[in-house]
Amino acid sequence: MPKLNENILKMEKNYLFINIAKKINAFKENNPDADIIRMGIGDVTLPIAPVVIDAMKKGCDEMGVKETFKGYEDSGAGYDFLKKAVSDYYKKLGADVAPDEIRINDGAKSDCGNIVDIFGNDNIILVTDPAYPVYVDSNRMSGRKIIYADSNEENGFAAMPDFSVHADIIYLCSPNNPTGSVYTSEQLKVWIDYAKANDAVIIYDSAYEAFITDANIPRSIYCVEGAKECAIEMCSLSKTAGFTGMRCGYTVIPDTLVYRSENGSDVPLSQLWNRRQGSKFNGVSYPVQCAAAAVFTDEGQRQIHENIAYYQENARIISDTMTKLGIKFTGGVNSPYIWFKCPNNMDSWDFFDLMLAEIYVVGTPGSGFGKNGEGWFRLTAFGDRQRTIEAMERFEKFVNNMK
Amino acid sequence: MPKLNENILKMEKNYLFINIAKKINAFKENNPDADIIRMGIGDVTLPIAPVVIDAMKKGCDEMGVKETFKGYEDSGAGYDFLKKAVSDYYKKLGADVAPDEIRINDGAKSDCGNIVDIFGNDNIILVTDPAYPVYVDSNRMSGRKIIYADSNEENGFAAMPDFSVHADIIYLCSPNNPTGSVYTSEQLKVWIDYAKANDAVIIYDSAYEAFITDANIPRSIYCVEGAKECAIEMCSLSKTAGFTGMRCGYTVIPDTLVYRSENGSDVPLSQLWNRRQGSKFNGVSYPVQCAAAAVFTDEGQRQIHENIAYYQENARIISDTMTKLGIKFTGGVNSPYIWFKCPNNMDSWDFFDLMLAEIYVVGTPGSGFGKNGEGWFRLTAFGDRQRTIEAMERFEKFVNNMK
Repeated sequence: MPKLNENILKMEKNYLFINIAKKINAFKENNPDADIIRMGIGDVTLPIAPVVIDAMKKGCDEMGVKETFKGYEDSGAGYDFLKKAVSDYYKKLGADVAPDEIRINDGAKSDCGNIVDIFGNDNIILVTDPAYPVYVDSNRMSGRKIIYADSNEENGFAAMPDFSVHADIIYLCSPNNPTGSVYTSEQLKVWIDYAKANDAVIIYDSAYEAFITDANIPRSIYCVEGAKECAIEMCSLSKTAGFTGMRCGYTVIPDTLVYRSENGSDVPLSQLWNRRQGSKFNGVSYPVQCAAAAVFTDEGQRQIHENIAYYQENARIISDTMTKLGIKFTGGVNSPYIWFKCPNNMDSWDFFDLMLAEIYVVGTPGSGFGKNGEGWFRLTAFGDRQRTIEAMERFEKFVNNMK
Repeated sequence: MPKLNENILKMEKNYLFINIAKKINAFKENNPDADIIRMGIGDVTLPIAPVVIDAMKKGCDEMGVKETFKGYEDSGAGYDFLKKAVSDYYKKLGADVAPDEIRINDGAKSDCGNIVDIFGNDNIILVTDPAYPVYVDSNRMSGRKIIYADSNEENGFAAMPDFSVHADIIYLCSPNNPTGSVYTSEQLKVWIDYAKANDAVIIYDSAYEAFITDANIPRSIYCVEGAKECAIEMCSLSKTAGFTGMRCGYTVIPDTLVYRSENGSDVPLSQLWNRRQGSKFNGVSYPVQCAAAAVFTDEGQRQIHENIAYYQENARIISDTMTKLGIKFTGGVNSPYIWFKCPNNMDSWDFFDLMLAEIYVVGTPGSGFGKNGEGWFRLTAFGDRQRTIEAMERFEKFVNNMK
């Protein structure tokens, strides 16, 4: 009989957002007329930019003609035209990333989950808490030891390293999901110094970099000195260009990331990742890559920034409501997330249930992201403008009634 | 310092087809004028059917309009419209598969590689040899024990089980990649009986089912009694509908696949897979799913079968050449692959090099698929008609000159 992966059985039965979807569906069944506003899962609502759609349709047409048809990619790591576009984009952010250090993927979640395959199981994993559940889930599935750096009210939900504690692999996310906090260059330099002191590798999630408005906040870890020697960066077009249903992102594994194997030879992480992907991945749909490349054109950037500005205004509306109500929060600036303290010191799931029952607004319980999220709550700015305003009007009355 | 996955370092440095691509590129550099005909990697050459392109472009248009825009899928396992289309297709093949037992993926390779994540590492894996390298590679990466069932000239390259040997997880592929052999219902029934005797699970790769012309050969393992209690099936649109660059396939995990965990509880494999995918996968691009659904419409089936018939005629041309030259082979019927014995008892890579150097035709060395492939060679029928004819003309002279 096949032995099962018992590590999975020790985890919570469902991924966080699947649990939330189930709760909402159950509520809807009992309350079919409730006008629910979803600000839970971080999903976008604006359509894909016209220049991106046109590029994708052009890619479709090419697939329908023998002379321009594309089959397998040789490498599966992305077409040169897209890797070049991402590399040029990095230049604009002030980071030096060569096209061949970039791997195109079907969204950051896949690579973020699968990257664990290139490491042994006896590593110490450091995750800031609260965090995007994939960091913890993917390591728990392979039975790894996870330690946590606390992000909390005191440090503005931006954990810093404890140099007395050792780690081998470090997950960081800035702008942070779920807390909306950002690391400055100086703070990231401290993390890089910590990684180097431990000869550790950082897995840096920059999925929300496009929401940074403060010129002093780095939009890539490679804007900070030393990062090319210790950090993998993962980014996504999901929130930048509304690709949650299109599926495209990219991972940077610098050639300079080299670690010692058991037999004493130096092994580039890129070699291990290429081998993993060579056997388990066949690349991203060609028309999707055409769409992604259009995002990085001048017109693409102009069009997606209209959408980003729209979400940023939503974030301002939500933030202003929190300020008005005297509720403590982080994020809202440089980030599409608003992370706030549940009124009346309620715990996260109780507040989720109450808010859904009373005002039909769905958010994400902070405790779903880790123990330090308990008592906190996440709202996203990715909704429709009128619905966001409506949700905040309901929220204001709701909180005032609780007082 | 991060401990690396040493299992990967013990493997060959590159995935088979990446090695072949490198060899070709090196040859081209030294012989820039050589008119190379590629019959190596099993990649298609005909463009995507018009009805499929239209459906994908319609999906693109929907993504550009707020009212029809699609973000994340709730489950990430595929839209209902596509799962229903696949389920209906299974009915036509004579198999009963419910939509909710189907998971849509970005090509069979991903699921085939990632399925290992739901099993513990202390399983005995049985692979028929020769085989598609992903079965072996993905299990070697997690350090599992692999045993082999020999496919060879004596059994027509269709290995049968040895009931005196125990296995927990069994990989089967019919029509077979690389040998083109097919299992009859009676043979599959023996494998199912073997799986049941061992309480083992079969991972059945049916990627080439659309090439079966013999009505007596099952096109799904679920056409055979008992399979729903022991088999996962993986299929792909890559060869069926030319999706190698579009990326879409499907995996069936019947609800009836239930195994005992260490604590004695019964666990459906679907639960473990859903948890794995929930944390590591976000579904397939919506326009790609629209394209895939069009494949299963009546008009889609009519159009893709024109392409399949074209490839089948190529297979006949290659087979006829082998027959004419008195070369032993399997496949060519019910399969797009022709698997032949290298002339003059050459070994596979020597024959690869010689054929490339002498007649600029690329194939795949049989030894790349396992030890029983040594001395054998694979050609694919997925090329252009005129190029296939040209390749066979060159091949005929080449082999005659060797005599």
